[in-house]
Order: sequence, then C-alpha cells, then structure tokens
Amino acid sequence: MWNNWELKRKLEEWIQEDIGFGDITTNSTIPAEEQGTGIIYTKETGVIAGLDVAEQVFTLIDPSLQFFRRTEDGASVEKGTVIAEVTGSVRSILSGERLALNLMQRMSGIATCTRQYVQAVAGTKARVVDTRKTTPGLRMLEKYAVRVGGGHNHRYALYDAVMIKDNHIKGAGGIRQAVQAARAAIPHTMKIEVEAESLDQVQEALAAGADIIMLDNMSLDEMREAVALIDGRAIVEASGGVTLETIGAIAQTGVDVISVGVLTHSVRALDISLDLNQRKR
Amino acid sequence: MWNNWELKRKLEEWIQEDIGFGDITTNSTIPAEEQGTGIIYTKETGVIAGLDVAEQVFTLIDPSLQFFRRTEDGASVEKGTVIAEVTGSVRSILSGERLALNLMQRMSGIATCTRQYVQAVAGTKARVVDTRKTTPGLRMLEKYAVRVGGGHNHRYALYDAVMIKDNHIKGAGGIRQAVQAARAAIPHTMKIEVEAESLDQVQEALAAGADIIMLDNMSLDEMREAVALIDGRAIVEASGGVTLETIGAIAQTGVDVISVGVLTHSVRALDISLDLNQRKR
Amino acid sequence: MWNNWELKRKLEEWIQEDIGFGDITTNSTIPAEEQGTGIIYTKETGVIAGLDVAEQVFTLIDPSLQFFRRTEDGASVEKGTVIAEVTGSVRSILSGERLALNLMQRMSGIATCTRQYVQAVAGTKARVVDTRKTTPGLRMLEKYAVRVGGGHNHRYALYDAVMIKDNHIKGAGGIRQAVQAARAAIPHTMKIEVEAESLDQVQEALAAGADIIMLDNMSLDEMREAVALIDGRAIVEASGGVTLETIGAIAQTGVDVISVGVLTHSVRALDISLDLNQRKR
Amino acid sequence: MWNNWELKRKLEEWIQEDIGFGDITTNSTIPAEEQGTGIIYTKETGVIAGLDVAEQVFTLIDPSLQFFRRTEDGASVEKGTVIAEVTGSVRSILSGERLALNLMQRMSGIATCTRQYVQAVAGTKARVVDTRKTTPGLRMLEKYAVRVGGGHNHRYALYDAVMIKDNHIKGAGGIRQAVQAARAAIPHTMKIEVEAESLDQVQEALAAGADIIMLDNMSLDEMREAVALIDGRAIVEASGGVTLETIGAIAQTGVDVISVGVLTHSVRALDISLDLNQRKR
Amino acid sequence: MWNNWELKRKLEEWIQEDIGFGDITTNSTIPAEEQGTGIIYTKETGVIAGLDVAEQVFTLIDPSLQFFRRTEDGASVEKGTVIAEVTGSVRSILSGERLALNLMQRMSGIATCTRQYVQAVAGTKARVVDTRKTTPGLRMLEKYAVRVGGGHNHRYALYDAVMIKDNHIKGAGGIRQAVQAARAAIPHTMKIEVEAESLDQVQEALAAGADIIMLDNMSLDEMREAVALIDGRAIVEASGGVTLETIGAIAQTGVDVISVGVLTHSVRALDISLDLNQRKR
Amino acid sequence: MWNNWELKRKLEEWIQEDIGFGDITTNSTIPAEEQGTGIIYTKETGVIAGLDVAEQVFTLIDPSLQFFRRTEDGASVEKGTVIAEVTGSVRSILSGERLALNLMQRMSGIATCTRQYVQAVAGTKARVVDTRKTTPGLRMLEKYAVRVGGGHNHRYALYDAVMIKDNHIKGAGGIRQAVQAARAAIPHTMKIEVEAESLDQVQEALAAGADIIMLDNMSLDEMREAVALIDGRAIVEASGGVTLETIGAIAQTGVDVISVGVLTHSVRALDISLDLNQRKR
Repeated sequence: MWNNWELKRKLEEWIQEDIGFGDITTNSTIPAEEQGTGIIYTKETGVIAGLDVAEQVFTLIDPSLQFFRRTEDGASVEKGTVIAEVTGSVRSILSGERLALNLMQRMSGIATCTRQYVQAVAGTKARVVDTRKTTPGLRMLEKYAVRVGGGHNHRYALYDAVMIKDNHIKGAGGIRQAVQAARAAIPHTMKIEVEAESLDQVQEALAAGADIIMLDNMSLDEMREAVALIDGRAIVEASGGVTLETIGAIAQTGVDVISVGVLTHSVRALDISLDLNQRKR
Repeated sequence: MWNNWELKRKLEEWIQEDIGFGDITTNSTIPAEEQGTGIIYTKETGVIAGLDVAEQVFTLIDPSLQFFRRTEDGASVEKGTVIAEVTGSVRSILSGERLALNLMQRMSGIATCTRQYVQAVAGTKARVVDTRKTTPGLRMLEKYAVRVGGGHNHRYALYDAVMIKDNHIKGAGGIRQAVQAARAAIPHTMKIEVEAESLDQVQEALAAGADIIMLDNMSLDEMREAVALIDGRAIVEASGGVTLETIGAIAQTGVDVISVGVLTHSVRALDISLDLNQRKR
Repeated sequence: MWNNWELKRKLEEWIQEDIGFGDITTNSTIPAEEQGTGIIYTKETGVIAGLDVAEQVFTLIDPSLQFFRRTEDGASVEKGTVIAEVTGSVRSILSGERLALNLMQRMSGIATCTRQYVQAVAGTKARVVDTRKTTPGLRMLEKYAVRVGGGHNHRYALYDAVMIKDNHIKGAGGIRQAVQAARAAIPHTMKIEVEAESLDQVQEALAAGADIIMLDNMSLDEMREAVALIDGRAIVEASGGVTLETIGAIAQTGVDVISVGVLTHSVRALDISLDLNQRKR
Repeated sequence: MWNNWELKRKLEEWIQEDIGFGDITTNSTIPAEEQGTGIIYTKETGVIAGLDVAEQVFTLIDPSLQFFRRTEDGASVEKGTVIAEVTGSVRSILSGERLALNLMQRMSGIATCTRQYVQAVAGTKARVVDTRKTTPGLRMLEKYAVRVGGGHNHRYALYDAVMIKDNHIKGAGGIRQAVQAARAAIPHTMKIEVEAESLDQVQEALAAGADIIMLDNMSLDEMREAVALIDGRAIVEASGGVTLETIGAIAQTGVDVISVGVLTHSVRALDISLDLNQRKR
Repeated sequence: MWNNWELKRKLEEWIQEDIGFGDITTNSTIPAEEQGTGIIYTKETGVIAGLDVAEQVFTLIDPSLQFFRRTEDGASVEKGTVIAEVTGSVRSILSGERLALNLMQRMSGIATCTRQYVQAVAGTKARVVDTRKTTPGLRMLEKYAVRVGGGHNHRYALYDAVMIKDNHIKGAGGIRQAVQAARAAIPHTMKIEVEAESLDQVQEALAAGADIIMLDNMSLDEMREAVALIDGRAIVEASGGVTLETIGAIAQTGVDVISVGVLTHSVRALDISLDLNQRKR
Repeated sequence: MWNNWELKRKLEEWIQEDIGFGDITTNSTIPAEEQGTGIIYTKETGVIAGLDVAEQVFTLIDPSLQFFRRTEDGASVEKGTVIAEVTGSVRSILSGERLALNLMQRMSGIATCTRQYVQAVAGTKARVVDTRKTTPGLRMLEKYAVRVGGGHNHRYALYDAVMIKDNHIKGAGGIRQAVQAARAAIPHTMKIEVEAESLDQVQEALAAGADIIMLDNMSLDEMREAVALIDGRAIVEASGGVTLETIGAIAQTGVDVISVGVLTHSVRALDISLDLNQRKR
C-alpha cells in the first residue's frame, strides 16, 4: 500500500531518535538471553491501523523477533482486545515498544476518527477525504490510516494534482486564465481542481473546464445550488470546518467529496499497551 | 535550543515530502516575478510556538524571503493576532505555506495545552513534564514546545537516563539488583529512576539508592505517604492518566514532578492561517 | 520548474562521483590564485537546455564563481554560439567543466530532438509527450528538457496517475473491473488511462469511464476510427514506435497526445564545449 | 566488478524516483496474491549487459522474487532471445519492470556499441577505451558496460590519474613544469598523462617523463610519426572525434589506446521487453 | 551494547571509503570461486576489543562469510593468539581485511591501555573514565572499548549531562547562578557537574547543589582536602594530566572517579594480523 | 586539497555526534548575546595541520563566527604559540571547541610525527609515505596531514592502484600471471605494485613488468641488492616495521619510497588548547 523502502528509511531514523547510542536501562538490567512475549492490546474501543508498521519496527531492531497478528488493519475492536504478539529477546521487545506503540496509537487514532466520519455519511455517495494538514514526515502513514478507516485520500502533495485557490486566481488574473495556464503546463494525466467561494466562481470554474470544483465554506443551500448547477460536469467537493455534527447534512446536499482536516491535524491517540511475559531461556 | 543541523536536515526532507518534483499549481499560475506578503495570524486564543521553525521553512525554500516576527514563542495571544509576516516571491510563500503552518499549528497546540497544565499546578513546586509519547521524527520540536508552554522535559530518549520499570525489575531479579546493575554500567553522570507501584517498592527503590522514584498510578493518599517516606532523599515523580482535572490535587501531595503523556500524544492543532497580499513587482 | 533541494542533493552526489577526494591534476598544476573565464559554446546547431543546472554545478563547487547566461533555455542556436560564460578561479572552473557539460549536452540533446518532433506535428492539436523511459536519477532533468523543447510530459512516475495496461486488465479480470477497482482506490484528483489494443477495447474503456485512452500500436485507420468513436469523451493518446517519419500522419488522425519513448531513451548529446581564458590575478 | 553497497544505495534511490509513495495502478488492480513470470527478451540483435543490476532491482523491491538468467553479460544475442526470467508476485514484477529495463537497455546499448568499435580494431594491439563523458550517477554502470562490450576503461574520475591538458600546461608554465609539479604532489602509485596537440608537444611530454601521451585530434600521419618518436617509452593514446569509420585506420598507426566518447555520451538503448505470464496462486 | 543501526551505517560508509568503485587488485587476480580462511591473531600481548565490529565488516561485505570467535572482547591474550577466523570467498576476505583490522587494532589498543590504568587503581573505589577527546565518528566504538578494558564512560556528549566549566561560570555570573540556571532548564533526570579549580570553588559548587564536583588539576593534598570537605554529598572526580605513574596516588586520595584523556586521544594500535589459507573450491 | 563537499558532510555528522539535540550546559548558562574570542594555542612543540578544518567546524556551527589564522598548516611552532583565533558568539565557540580541537590535535600529531621521519631521510632521495592503516572515516584528513608534515601519500584506497600481495600471487598462480591478469583488467592509467619477499620475487616482478616493487621486511643488504638489481626499471619501495631509528639506514640503501604505518595507526595527539575571552556585547 506504500513504498517499503521509504518506510524502512524512516523507521531507521525514528529508531535512532529514540535509541541513539543505546537503551541503557534495558541493556544493563535485562540478561541478553532473556526471552519473552509482548502482548499488544487495546485499552479502549477503536479501529486498528499500523500492524505492518509495528511489525517492521520490531524486526528492524531485531530480525529474530517474531510478530503475530491477532487482528487486521481496519478491524473495529473492543477495549481489551489482543491485536498482536511479539516474541523473542526481551531486550529487543522493550527497546522497540515505545516507537511501535507511538505509531500504532497515532494511526489507529486516525482510523478510528475517520470511521466515525464515514459512518456519518452512510447512505450517501459522498467520499470522506483527508487534506495536506498531516504531520511532517508521516504523511504516507497518516493517509494510509485514513484509508484504513474507510476514508479516501485527497491529492498526496503539491505535485500530483492542481489545486487553484484564491491566490492563484489573483496571480493568473482570473479563474479562466489560471485553468488555462495550468492545463497548458501540466501533463494530460493530471486533473485541475478550482476552489470556489461563490456560485459565480462555480460558474466560472465550470466554464473554464475544471475537473473538480471545491465549494469553500458554503452554506448548505449554496452547496445544493452548486450541485444542481454543476450537474455532473465536474466532481464537487465540499470543504471548510466540517465536523461530525455537520458532515451528514453536507453529504445530503449531493456533493461527491467532503474533505476533513481534523482527520489528521488533531489526532487523539488510541490507547494501546504492551504487556510483557518474561521467561528465562 | 536545539541543534540546527538536525533541524535543517529534517526540514529539507519535509519540504521534499510536500513539494516533490514541484508545486505545479503555483508554478503554472503565478508569474515568477510576483511579490507579496503573507500575514500569519491566529484564528483562536493560544500560546505561540515555532516561529523559528516557520522562518526556516520559508528561507530554506527561498533564501530571499524575509520573515518578520510580530510576537515571540511563548506569547499568549488572542484570536486574530498577527504573529509573523513573510515577504517576497509569492511562489515561494505559497509553496512553503502548508509546511510552515502544519508545524506551527502543532507546536502551538502543544504549548497551549502545556500552559493549561502548568497553570493548574500554580503555587505548588511541581514541574509538569512530558513523556516519550511524541510523534516519531518530531521529538526535538515537540519537547521544545512543551518548554515554551512552561513545562519541563523528561528524559529525551532511551539513552540519556535510566528508567527502571516493572519488566526491568523482573529481568534483574529485584529493584536492588536492577539499580545496582545499572549503576555499575552507566556513567557517573547519569541518574536512575525507578517506577514504583506500591509503597513497598518505594521503600526498596529508596534503599537501592534511586535518584528519582516514580509513583505509578497511585492514589492521592499513597502519593502523600510516598512523599513523606522519601522525605527529600530522591526526586518524586507522579505519573499515570493525569488530566487537567486531576493534576492540581496531585501537585498538592508534594510531588516534585508530574509527567503528562497527553501533552504530546494527542495534540489539538492551534488554528493558524496565512493571508496573502499580492502585488506585481 | 523543479524542486531545487532535490536538484542540489543530486548535484552534490554527482560532483562527488567525478571529483572524489580531489581533482589531482588541477590542484597540482594550476596556482590557487589563477583567475579566468570559461566560454561555453555550441559546436553544432540545436536547442539549449540546462543553463540553470550548469550554473548550479559551478556555484556548488565554488560559490565565488560567476555565471553569465548569453542565451536562454529553449533558444535555437547555430553552431559556434556562446551560450554562457563562467568567471573566477581556474581551478574551480576546470573541476566543474565535465559535469556541467555532461548535463547540458544531454539536456540540450533531448530539447533538440523534442523540438523536431514538435515541429513535425505543427498545425495539429497533438501534444508530443515523453514516457517513463528516462535515465534513472535524471528524470526530473530529462522531463524538463522535453518541456524546453516544446513537448509536454506524460505522468511523472508510477504514483501520479493510473495507467492500466494489458497485465493489469488480466489481473483485475477485465477493463471494467480494472477501472472500477482503481477508481475506488485512488484519490478523486487522479486520472485513469487505459491502454487499448483494439477498437473493442476502446469501447470497453470508454464504457468503463476511462479519462484517457491510449491507442497501442494501432494503424492510422484504426486511430482515425478510435478518434471518431471516442468523440471527445476521453483524451486520446497514440503510442508505439513513433518516429520523426510517422508522427506527422499520426497527428493528422486527430489524436490529442502522442507519446515518444525515443525522446529520452536514446539521447544523442548536443556537442557543447568550454574554452578557458586564463589570466594571473 | 563494482562495489555492491554503492549500487544498492543508487538502486534504492532510483526505485524511489519511479515508485514514490506507491505504484497505484498495480496495487489497485492486481490481487496481492497473484503470481507470474516475467520473460525478458530482446527485440533486436545486440550484446547483453546488466543482468546483475536487473536482478538487484527486482530483489530489492521484493526479496521473494526469483531471477533466472538465460544468458550472461557479454553474450551476443539475436532478436527474440530470452535473456532472463523473473518469477513471483505479479505486483512486484510490474513495479520493477520499467527500472530494470531502463538500466539493461542502456547498459546493453553501450555494450553493443562498444563491441562494434572493438571489432573494428581486431588484429591490432589497440585498446578501445571510454571517457568521463558518462551520465551523472551512472558512471559505475556505464564503465562496466564498456568492459562487457570488450572495451577497457580510461581513468575513472578526476582523482585516480593525472591528465594534463592545455589549460593545465598554461597554468603551470609549460609541459615540463606541469609534469614536475604533478609528480611531486601525487602518490608514486599514480600515472601522468599529457595531452599533446603537436609532435613538438609529444617531444616535450616524453622529455618530461609522461607515462602516457595522448595525441589530440592528430592526422593519421602525425599519429604514425608520434608512435615512432615515442618508441615504447610511453603509452600512446589517440583521441578526438573517433568514429566507427575511422577507428580501424587509427589502430593501424600503432597507437596503444583509442578513447571514444560516443560509447557513453550518445547511447542508443537496446530494445528489450518484458512479457508477463500471470497465474492465480 | 550499542545501536546496531548506527554502526551499520557507519561501516557501510567506511567500506565505501576503502573499496570505492572496487578492489581492483583482488577482483583481477583472485578467481571469484576461490575459498579460504583468514586467521586473525595478535602479534603482541593485549586486551581484545571489537570482535563484533570485525564480524560485521566481513558480513556486510559478503553475507556468506562465516566468522568464528576464538576469544571474547575483554580477554587478555598473549602474542600469537588466534582471536577469530573468517571463512568463505577469498575475494571478500581480502577486501574487508584492512578495515576490520584497522578497527580491531584501534579498539584493542584502547582496551589494552585502559586495562593498565584500571589495574593501577586496583584496591581503591576509584572509577577510571574516558573523556570527549575521542576520534570524530568513532565515539561509540571508542567508549565501548574503554568499557571492555574495565573503565567506565564519562558523559557521552554535550547533550546528556551538564558540565559547568570556567567559561560557563563567567557567562552565568558565578557557580551558584550557573547551577541554578542549568537546573531550571534541564530535565530532572540529568545531573550537573561543576569544574572546580580551588577549594573555594568546591565549597561554592557544594552549596549550589552540584551532583558531581570535578577537581581540576589539583595537587594530591588539595584532592584529599576536597574529598574530606565534600564528604559524600557529591561525586568527586579528579581530572587533568593523569598518567599511569600518577593515577595510583590520585586514587588513594579517595576520589570517586578519575578521567583520563589519553585513553582515547593518543591511541597506540594493538598489532593484529590476518593470515589467509587459500583453497580452490 | 580535498573535496570540500565530502568534508562538509563529515563535519556535519561529527557535529551531530557531539552536540546531538543540544549543548545543554552552554545553552542554559551563557546568555545568547555574549560575545568573545577563543585563542587557540599549542601546549607543546610541533607541526600544525588542520586550520581549514577547524575553521569549517566553527563556521558550520555558526556562520557568523570569524576565524583568524595566526600561522599556516605546515608551520613548526614552539609551545605557547597562538595558531588561530575565533571571534563571535560565546555559545557557538564553546559548542565547537571540542570537535575543532579533536581534529587539529590529531592532524597536527600526524604532521609532527611525519616531519620527524622526513627529517631522518634528509639528503637521500627517499619519499616517506603513509599506508591504508588510517582511522576509518578520516582517511582524507590523515593523508592530508601526512603531506603537511612533508611526507607523500601511498595509494588512497583499494581502487586507485593495484597492489599485488602474497595472497593475490597464490590466487593467480604466480607473479607473472597476477601482473598479466591485472594489466588486462585495469585502465592503462593505473600502476601495478608487487610485494616481494625475496630477491627471486624481485626478479619475477621485474620480468612481469611491475611498475613498483615493494621490498617486504628485507634486510638492509637485501634492499641494496634489490635496488641494484632493479636498476631504475621500477620504483622501489621499502616496507615493514620501519621506525625512526631504522629509516635513515633504509633510505641509504637507495630505495625510492619508504612506507610507514605508524604515521597514522598510532597517533599521539599534539596538545592544543583554546582559551576564551568573554565580553558582554
């Protein structure tokens, strides 16, 4: 689902951040030969994401560790569910515990939150999508977690789709000019999205041939009107301060896509713990 | 306050994550010579952190950009306060906007939250400290933001202090043995902290010569007893599920330090925006 | 036009490849204080590309070098035209000469070749585009050179557009299934291209809602028929063994885009040289 | 034949260039468990080079892929020859296909071209060698391909041999001074080559004790005279605008080495393809 | 004992430093299939350190090499002792020989020297510790070698303990102010050491609550007085020009720790060699 | 004298090794605005090397620092000589002090030692050269320091010259075969050195056309005989356990080059210190 080389490089750097020149507590108190099993379980209800990542943390630190999944990414689990077990050197398990949990808690937090938004639009055709308001360095993992939660991704970054906003319109001299300039410069394989703040701008964007029109902070009535106006000739995206309370009504307006910044910019970690059973080998 | 080389390297990687082979929207719609000023301002009340980081984002992308602070890290500001301005090439400002805001919003969110916890222990001697539950790759920035909010840092990572937990005690065969083993292995410049789950363990840790004793999930009564028992012979840290509601009473027990995971593991971004004034040069 | 951070990192690596622990000839024979000017000029007719890159090579090796353009990227120049001059330390100029020329020769070779293909379709609406058959590590520069020559880019890489080929169709169980599966998985900001080897496949792709249909190695008659069939409901791309001799007729069929692998996979370097005027300081 | 660590690092970067955050087409259309075999074969006659590199591309992307060679580097093969097969996950094969082919096509193109030059000097003692006009970042692979084609390498880079050209002579104040200065500075394990544009310069270089004398753009008669003059006291290298038409006569003059820039600066890729046989596991 | 990821990264870089684009001698003279065993043995008496590192050098270069320890790190061995054997490809053994020996000789030199200092304080409670006068890039390995020799480590770097020296005292306005400022800024998990040049400064440091007091270049009498004065309220460290001749008497003064720069800043390599038994496979 | 890009990268890594997440002592005790001058001076007699490197350490840490040389690399200085001054932020000076000194002390130690060996062969034609027994990661700097001390370098690494030793001879089946095999494989720009343990081997190496013959651990008489035998047809190098006591007599035998491992494998640091004058700005 992502590029493993990139992930591995990041994990190595994050391992370095936490372990540095060594886990001095573990290395001085735990015998090198001590074996055990770490039980990873939830302490609250939520959607799991990040099992692959947790496995890689442990096996990068020590390739002899064995990681057993007890559930899958995307599973909704109750408090107290065992989601994975990791077996082998106690030293290695303890050295990797914090990083593995930090990542899984964050990713599962995103998946859990996304699931709620997705359920709130059930029965409509609207996609719930993320934004570029991700944590620097973790975009790959956070966008994955959104998908795990049932959401979809918006563009990945500044380079894979055109998104014409207010300032671009000013810079180009108008919506029509901006869309034309972009169309001339970009590959024929890319789409152009235009951010519209009024129905007039929706009209202009439509006339300019925008592939996607984003309704920026419009009222429900305006959205309905815009959907009628566009009438399938472009994808319609709603955006701006969307919450769990408002997303249902927004979806009812007939928009195709609703983007939700809070999915990634204000993550509440899902509470996940590791309990260790030690045994002398 | 941190190592600039390390920060620069991270920022370059994060710029790469968002810009990749180019900001195609901006490059195709905004004339290269267009100049302007980005006004960065708050959309809610909070504590600012990350001005240095935001400045570096912009000047790494384009060394000719000028960044003017209108406040300082640590300032409590109202909604609508201008906190900085960045002047120069509109293309460069737009390409850096998202990363700069992502970082400042997150760091200011941490500082704002920390400030609340610190105010809740005002009048006591207790330090509010963070944990290792930080976002992988951002620990340096997140621990800085905690300090900006008036908190203090716990150990940075696994390598700069010993923290003996339940599993280490089991591995070593007891608190005394664990402390001895660690003391023998580590530099004389390092401290040893022991996690105690009962007053008996507090006694053992004290007898073993622990520098810091962490009271793990104890009741207020137990904490008071532990503080009396330790009587200044070790630093006393309270830990476990601390919230804004409970921290005041915990501080009243006389502990020296209270560690709060939520400061960094579940950050709510502070809402900060950038408005751009464009002008043709 | 590209991300300068990425380019800088690559240039540093390429400088390292050629200079390693030092340019022993230059360092032992040329006095450190010797100053001079390198005149960069063409030895044959062609289109120039890569002035920015050449400038960066020289200024990375020695920030005190001054680089003066005597033409611009995209200019068609005769044999013997001075395209740039670089002034300063003779040691630095000689150490950077080969890398700067290697890059400019290659990029100008691509721009020159592209210009010929673009001229061969003049008067039609067809875009000439490149492929992913670029030199590993140089894609950013080679795709830029195609644009300088008047061509356009196809997708940048495997991550910024969907291109469903024969094997994907087999894997998914049909064109309809493949398009559906992709549409469900990808962001709404991305397009789907389907490779069709027959008019039947063109029909299927159209029915499946492909954004772009690529006519793979079709005859001119088939292409004409496909264009008529599609009738503006998808972008039409011709592909497969296109040469300077055949591209004109292909463009006449009414296709929107013609992709040409030879633009980047078999580059003839444009002959460019550097003559040095030395003077003692 | 080269340093594998360096190659691995480069391949990872090139994989990243093409795959980035993921091969979205393959991941969304091909089931993860789908198995198959990629047949790699030539579409024209040529000399194969790069089997090791292609194998590493596939096994870096997916260590469970198996790569079977059906020929060896250096083999002259007809159009339609199967040169290798790769078996395993269809997803992994498709994600690696383009990079593996891009590298093999380029390397085989160089080997094929070199073989022609080498055959053109058959029966003489002359070595055909490459230059530093290689593609930045690929020098290691391109110089290897020259050897596979039967050629030899010139110096690798600016650091492993002295090559005194016109500008170095001017800087040092004469051939004698330049050779002396270099000899005094470099290790006794390194050779000095001097570029001579006339028979007078050949004399001077010989008197100065050059190990190698390069005849720069001389006529056949001058070359013969130079060879007679040098008479085995230095290695004689011919250079400058050498083509397949002229190299035979040049070799007949008795020079030891002929350097040919076109081997690497204007590569025509050998046409190599991959056909995939898919099967459900 | 250290972070293996960091070590691996360093070893790869050092392999690159020595092998670069290839071990041309070995690759051209030794058949690829030649097998053999390298016997690593001492040519003088000493303490062994670095077996892990040597093993990693060989297995990074060629994972099929087998490394057998014939002793352990920390062993005191006579001249002529076989300490390890490495079996497999002769090419790989020869390519790794120099780097493996360079590291083991240096590390064993440090361990051997440290052992002498440790023996010279036998019967006292004094720890022999290193300083930050290590070789850039090798600190991790050199501090490990000190421990192997029976010594202990001082702080690892500028970030894991506070060490207040003369200039810091001046900057802060006095010992008391400096200790206070540091205590307020650092985590409660860190210690503060103060460098004292007189008994007055020892008094001040004690009053300021320093955790460790370093006696800088004091006479034996002053040290004795300082030890009496401090009386267990802080750790006492002696420092400054310590030699094998003087360390015994210093230890007798009752100090807790003696830091010795010469352990790492002026290392005499232990003479270790590799003899190769070759056999055709 | 070396490649600055490579040096900069190394210095950044070494700065990271020592400073990590921050110089906590300096940052908490020294006011940010405090200015001063660090006086760098010798505490014993020796040859200075590394001023460039020290300057780069300081200016990388803080580009606003100014570095003034008071002598030059290669100068023989008495105890107490000021060799450089660095002016600016006291924080920055203190944070860079240790790394700058560690490097200069080591490099000056090598230059000082080399100078003694060079003086011991004064009046002969013999070059004193180093070996590959350098500190991993520092080869570039250590080989430079040897040149500063008046010595010369041997080959840089395994890739820039052929050195045929005992095991290569066995692998190839004889000296003649080894030289032939190497000559056929390597560029014509590279030399071949053969290690000879007897006069018979010297004969063989000569007959095989070796460019350099190394006399391995021969007696003075054997060396004289070998020199006579070779008679200028190859460069003659003496090697093996050379000391300050023996090198003079070895040089008298008429050899061209004497290689000395001790120059780099057992470095005694030259004692260099930094004194800081602080002043409030």
